[in-house]
Amino acid sequence: MNLTDSQAAEISAQRSSQATTRRATVPALEARLFEAIPLLDHGFVRVIDYMGDDAAIVQAARVSYGRGTRRVSEDAGLIRYLMRHRHTTPFEMCEIKFHVKLPIFVARQWIRHRTANVNEYSARYSVLDREFYIPEPEQLAAQSSSNRQGRGDVLEGEEAADVLAVLRDDATRCYDHYVEMLNEDEGGAVRDPERQGLARELARMNLTLNTYTQWYWKTDLHNLLHFCSLRADAHAQYEIRVYADAILDVVKDWVPAAHAAFMDYRLGAATFSAQMVAVLKRMLAGEAVAQPASGLSKREWTELIAALGG
Amino acid sequence: MNLTDSQAAEISAQRSSQATTRRATVPALEARLFEAIPLLDHGFVRVIDYMGDDAAIVQAARVSYGRGTRRVSEDAGLIRYLMRHRHTTPFEMCEIKFHVKLPIFVARQWIRHRTANVNEYSARYSVLDREFYIPEPEQLAAQSSSNRQGRGDVLEGEEAADVLAVLRDDATRCYDHYVEMLNEDEGGAVRDPERQGLARELARMNLTLNTYTQWYWKTDLHNLLHFCSLRADAHAQYEIRVYADAILDVVKDWVPAAHAAFMDYRLGAATFSAQMVAVLKRMLAGEAVAQPASGLSKREWTELIAALGG
Amino acid sequence: MNLTDSQAAEISAQRSSQATTRRATVPALEARLFEAIPLLDHGFVRVIDYMGDDAAIVQAARVSYGRGTRRVSEDAGLIRYLMRHRHTTPFEMCEIKFHVKLPIFVARQWIRHRTANVNEYSARYSVLDREFYIPEPEQLAAQSSSNRQGRGDVLEGEEAADVLAVLRDDATRCYDHYVEMLNEDEGGAVRDPERQGLARELARMNLTLNTYTQWYWKTDLHNLLHFCSLRADAHAQYEIRVYADAILDVVKDWVPAAHAAFMDYRLGAATFSAQMVAVLKRMLAGEAVAQPASGLSKREWTELIAALGG
Amino acid sequence: MNLTDSQAAEISAQRSSQATTRRATVPALEARLFEAIPLLDHGFVRVIDYMGDDAAIVQAARVSYGRGTRRVSEDAGLIRYLMRHRHTTPFEMCEIKFHVKLPIFVARQWIRHRTANVNEYSARYSVLDREFYIPEPEQLAAQSSSNRQGRGDVLEGEEAADVLAVLRDDATRCYDHYVEMLNEDEGGAVRDPERQGLARELARMNLTLNTYTQWYWKTDLHNLLHFCSLRADAHAQYEIRVYADAILDVVKDWVPAAHAAFMDYRLGAATFSAQMVAVLKRMLAGEAVAQPASGLSKREWTELIAALGG
Repeated sequence: MNLTDSQAAEISAQRSSQATTRRATVPALEARLFEAIPLLDHGFVRVIDYMGDDAAIVQAARVSYGRGTRRVSEDAGLIRYLMRHRHTTPFEMCEIKFHVKLPIFVARQWIRHRTANVNEYSARYSVLDREFYIPEPEQLAAQSSSNRQGRGDVLEGEEAADVLAVLRDDATRCYDHYVEMLNEDEGGAVRDPERQGLARELARMNLTLNTYTQWYWKTDLHNLLHFCSLRADAHAQYEIRVYADAILDVVKDWVPAAHAAFMDYRLGAATFSAQMVAVLKRMLAGEAVAQPASGLSKREWTELIAALGG
Repeated sequence: MNLTDSQAAEISAQRSSQATTRRATVPALEARLFEAIPLLDHGFVRVIDYMGDDAAIVQAARVSYGRGTRRVSEDAGLIRYLMRHRHTTPFEMCEIKFHVKLPIFVARQWIRHRTANVNEYSARYSVLDREFYIPEPEQLAAQSSSNRQGRGDVLEGEEAADVLAVLRDDATRCYDHYVEMLNEDEGGAVRDPERQGLARELARMNLTLNTYTQWYWKTDLHNLLHFCSLRADAHAQYEIRVYADAILDVVKDWVPAAHAAFMDYRLGAATFSAQMVAVLKRMLAGEAVAQPASGLSKREWTELIAALGG
Repeated sequence: MNLTDSQAAEISAQRSSQATTRRATVPALEARLFEAIPLLDHGFVRVIDYMGDDAAIVQAARVSYGRGTRRVSEDAGLIRYLMRHRHTTPFEMCEIKFHVKLPIFVARQWIRHRTANVNEYSARYSVLDREFYIPEPEQLAAQSSSNRQGRGDVLEGEEAADVLAVLRDDATRCYDHYVEMLNEDEGGAVRDPERQGLARELARMNLTLNTYTQWYWKTDLHNLLHFCSLRADAHAQYEIRVYADAILDVVKDWVPAAHAAFMDYRLGAATFSAQMVAVLKRMLAGEAVAQPASGLSKREWTELIAALGG
Repeated sequence: MNLTDSQAAEISAQRSSQATTRRATVPALEARLFEAIPLLDHGFVRVIDYMGDDAAIVQAARVSYGRGTRRVSEDAGLIRYLMRHRHTTPFEMCEIKFHVKLPIFVARQWIRHRTANVNEYSARYSVLDREFYIPEPEQLAAQSSSNRQGRGDVLEGEEAADVLAVLRDDATRCYDHYVEMLNEDEGGAVRDPERQGLARELARMNLTLNTYTQWYWKTDLHNLLHFCSLRADAHAQYEIRVYADAILDVVKDWVPAAHAAFMDYRLGAATFSAQMVAVLKRMLAGEAVAQPASGLSKREWTELIAALGG
């Protein structure tokens, strides 16, 4: 369960209020506004606000006085051109704001994307909720043997059970000790009048890295797509990839033309080095090139063959 | 005249379209949306889009699930607290987008504010309009004798007339030669079929720095207020100050509580150095301090007296 | 103990190598280069590299061809002028790079300063060391009763002893389980050949927030001073303030004129709101102003009196 | 001629001073330090300072305590890996500072790269030099007929002569009027004691966009390479490309391993869209694909064939 009843009620109240605006408005995104998309066991992403639409990208590229009178197909063509040729500034003219609930170790990866605005729930000021991420059994993977920062086979049997028990027990015990040291209930009431209670800014250090935090996160479409290109990638850690995937799905509703161009020219595209292009030319000329004669290292050769679906 | 008829018609068409939204909406800003605020002789600022309101600052500071149920006065109190203690991130949660028309030499100062998104009308791609900034006579000032980067007395008589004539003649001649070298009319038609026409990216170099350009400019409220604190300041050049003043007026309609806090704690505030504070304490203790015994340089002493309205 | 023998040897080797350079060089900073300044129980800051000196600020402000021939006192005067009038760009022309070891909860505050370059030790890729921050008894403070994000009295007796025991036990147990789940020794050897070992990117989530991490952190002098103005402030949490204080001490060796100007015009300065300045004027005119008639809220009145050392 | 005698003397004096340092030092870059690389008719780029070398990239990626003991080939391999997989943060750990003299219309393109530190010569404060960019005859190109922001054939005969004469005359006249309005010689002496002289911040608006300006510009290696990838590209305007080319040449001396990786994986690489990759696969399977059956637009088809050297 990702939301308490009172949180759900607040969201519901906000969804029910409406106003009239002259601004660019996207009905498909309005329909999902404020709603929490559940992720992992206690996390979510929800859209809080947005600015602009596909047409806003075009308007900025043209520095227009009005909405313009071109056809949708012309706009989409311009957006594809801008994406293909990395004219990135028009995509910066759309902005979106999310409310995200996520484990702290995921937040630490996420925050490395610097061109964004962030307000995080403060554990100096408030008491964090009793919620920690415990992976689903099918996500409990061994260290990859080929990739020093990836996952290998899924753990099984007793080893898997032990790991789950440890994660759950340690997080729970650390949290219990956290509120004990604070000397206050989650509701804020003093537990033991004989004790002073440790300062919140100190007590938090006892929490484990799978404890959930939350923040408001706001960025422009260009930087959002850059985030997605790195975090929706197969090399990204699963626990942040689910957030990037959910965000990409939001982008599809928000700016469908930009989303399609991104899938074609960025996420689905392949970049070949100067040496790889030379090999490609030899192959296309009919030569049967093998790795030893390719001039590529084994690793690059493998990457080339993979990109060609071989 | 700042707008052509067709530009005015495009703006009018955009103003007449409306939609329903669940987003935070500010009626006072909606009322001015898209309208050009005329500045200098041919420039303007107009709001193209915005995200958030005073409540959005508060929501982000609290990482809220809903709009919150606090009273307006509580929200204003929190905003004042955030401004006073330089908790700047909640102000980054509001975003605004402008369309600005401005002389190139002003654009060159403006662009130094890096935390913003910009799309400028491209003179590599298009032909610039025949519009240049010519100061009003009361803005034709002499070099300041006391400040190496300021203005002194207003020029008068023949010298003023000469300057105005030079500015107008040189800009006009340079522009005439610009279109002549391009070999195209402002409408785009070829002038002399015998000539090829110089590339736009080269021809533009013949224009003077008072030629008008235009851009879409988008930034968050924190950075916008920082822009205003530097450019609405008495030391800023008049030609950019009029833009900052107009923007501050927009901010007042958009986020009145943040605007009031900014006026009190930033634009209207005074910062005193450690040495100045020491002098203040002596004064408040009844001592009649004069500059030589103050420990302040003459320049700092003058600044202190000025801040105290002396 | 903050360094292992092999780490100390590596640092010592690096300190012993020298080269000739035409670049601006600061002997006082060279003397401390690479040396670790111990902080907290296992942390440190050490300078890895730097660019520029006080003269480089002046050169940039003047866009000079050479080092310039002005006297040191003239340079210091210009630096004071730049600092006082918030001409910040010349200070961006100096750059410094640190290697920092710090608890994760401190790293999470620190990383909020976005205008910096960071490479953090990766717990996806490597195994973290068995080191966690345990506060000194005199730092074990209760929650402040007046400030929701501050500390009050120091805990004493049994409560203090309990807190220290909990922090130590929980961090130790979580770390022990971490390496157990990894199924590898700190040296990297497999512990139990019957088990696969959990992926590093997952196992790390069991660590507590007082576990130490480390990073290379590089920023320019302007942003470094901004960091110090916020983090060397009395309102900053003690555990990050010790880092900011140590960095300020490095700055003093590196760019003494900029440091002095910063202490006078930023860290030691006081900013008074428009309303506070009005009160000051009345006081200086001899009026005995009290809070109720001041027009200031109680909170602002208290801040004013505090700034005046009352 | 790009430098006055006194400027050359200042540079020469700076080149002759030496110091000892423990910092990473690059002899090949030291050899060219401060020397102006002449560009266009009056412009230049010169390196003022630098931080780091190839090994610094590796150290940051590993968060090392010392210089490390790996072989040069291992370091180069890691740098290639980082470049190929867009692990960009280690490249941010090297920093470089340039002094650049460039025409204003080039400066306006350049400044769009926001992640950099800039101090520009102030025309509010000082008088600009009498220097303007006049293209070489072989750079006087017509507008491209196929590309709205490119150049076509070189102008010839009378049209070329006319253009050169106009550019020279207009820039000269505007500059002459500039100093006349200022009422001061380039040396600073008052010309006509009967006149006040127009403020510098106003007079500058009469200058043409090919007037030279200059600035100190500092950035990190990652952002420098991004600048080069856009501005050393064939689609960049010639007048900025010569600067990017000169900078790339400096990078080669400074960080040869990073430079080589950049040439292979960025500047010399080709990116193919999802659709292009699908076509490539069909071609490699032996199919004779033509544009109509390719699923690519004509424009994309042309780009694919061009990338394959067809």
